[in-house]
Amino acid sequence: MIQVLKIGGKIIEDENLLKKTLNIFHQIKETKILVHGGGNIATKFSKKLGIQTKMINGRRITDSNILDIITMVYAGLINKKIVSILQSLNCNALGLSGIDVNLIKTKKRIDKNINYGYVGDLTNNSINISMLELFINNNIIPIICSLTHNGNGSILNTNADTIASYIAIALSKKKTRKVQLHYAFEKKGVINNLYNNNLYLNKINEKTFLDLKKKKIIKNGMIPKLDNGFFSLKMGVNKVTIGYPIGIIDPNMCTLLF
Amino acid sequence: MIQVLKIGGKIIEDENLLKKTLNIFHQIKETKILVHGGGNIATKFSKKLGIQTKMINGRRITDSNILDIITMVYAGLINKKIVSILQSLNCNALGLSGIDVNLIKTKKRIDKNINYGYVGDLTNNSINISMLELFINNNIIPIICSLTHNGNGSILNTNADTIASYIAIALSKKKTRKVQLHYAFEKKGVINNLYNNNLYLNKINEKTFLDLKKKKIIKNGMIPKLDNGFFSLKMGVNKVTIGYPIGIIDPNMCTLLF
Repeated sequence: MIQVLKIGGKIIEDENLLKKTLNIFHQIKETKILVHGGGNIATKFSKKLGIQTKMINGRRITDSNILDIITMVYAGLINKKIVSILQSLNCNALGLSGIDVNLIKTKKRIDKNINYGYVGDLTNNSINISMLELFINNNIIPIICSLTHNGNGSILNTNADTIASYIAIALSKKKTRKVQLHYAFEKKGVINNLYNNNLYLNKINEKTFLDLKKKKIIKNGMIPKLDNGFFSLKMGVNKVTIGYPIGIIDPNMCTLLF
Repeated sequence: MIQVLKIGGKIIEDENLLKKTLNIFHQIKETKILVHGGGNIATKFSKKLGIQTKMINGRRITDSNILDIITMVYAGLINKKIVSILQSLNCNALGLSGIDVNLIKTKKRIDKNINYGYVGDLTNNSINISMLELFINNNIIPIICSLTHNGNGSILNTNADTIASYIAIALSKKKTRKVQLHYAFEKKGVINNLYNNNLYLNKINEKTFLDLKKKKIIKNGMIPKLDNGFFSLKMGVNKVTIGYPIGIIDPNMCTLLF
């Protein structure tokens, strides 16, 4: 089994939680890959520099100033912090972006209504699987931040949840291996009741997801995670879980059912 | 021959000069490695954030704020810009720091008079040659920024000229291959006359260097470059040149003589 762990939310922002999570990641004996973004830290940093973050319909507009900040925060500050912590645990981590070794090539998003700026969307051929295999076959642990490129010299900001999904899908094309994808953040998982935040689902199928989405019990950032999760299952990923990453060892993390 | 090119000065700051230089680097047919820092961009960025850069005897003091900025600027902004430009030229560049795959482990500098902060010094065993060979044997071109680590979770700021020298030395330990080290910046090379800035030396030996240093014709940033260059020659590097990097193709670049 190959384990693909995407971390986000407070896990990245809170250094203690990050260290705790990386300690769990370090204990995974199987082949493993980590994917991360870092949007909130980039937003804070933009504010310090007096650069306004523009959002349209909850999506960040990536102009060239914001792209520079994201490049610094994702590939620099966060990625190297993660790699240095993992190296101190004797975990042979290699920090990567989608630009390095042409790992993830995307297409700049074209929208006739909104100019998203330097934002890249994944395609079926985006993941450079041979380079990824070279690393994992040599016991190197890829730590991938959510920056990609168009191959013509433009760096593109790309959704980290989607990158994790496409990496898991690309790895699962080889039928002799199994791939498990985890979406990890500070919350325990998917709630099934708007009025009681402590009721977490142990399992969820797409029908229940769509139903809870309609009732606005599942909302905001959970929606793309579950969309990506069910898409990954359909495309051949063997298992998808969501919640706080204790679930890699403890099977109580919410599992998506095909 | 393996070509190790260290770029610095205006080559990094001036985007047009950077692109021109990377185009030259791209045309090198042999195995090649690029090393870069980015001190001036980090200083400008610190100012924007209202963080004072402290210098003692011309050396930067790296406190935790400065370390964060350097990590962002070197491993993020500059490294990914270089990699994306090279990828657009079909050059299979991989951005690295000394932290990634434990490529360069250093010792935190201890000085009883000055607290340099998060600064790392190289030792004889600093370079992880097996990882470097894995990359170059797979036609991956390492683009290495001047950040290292102590192996215990601390990122350390390290001199890029010295990193390039130690990498060239480590590669030249294998006697079946030859290694050439280039220190490239915007100037044509080493001047031999204080009153005429257009008289460049085509060759320089250590005796002439020490003599010109005494006369203060060779000064400032040129001194550590030449110190590192002559040290590299003594330690087995086959050729060392200094000046604007046209010299990789054109042999007029100033050559250091053993």
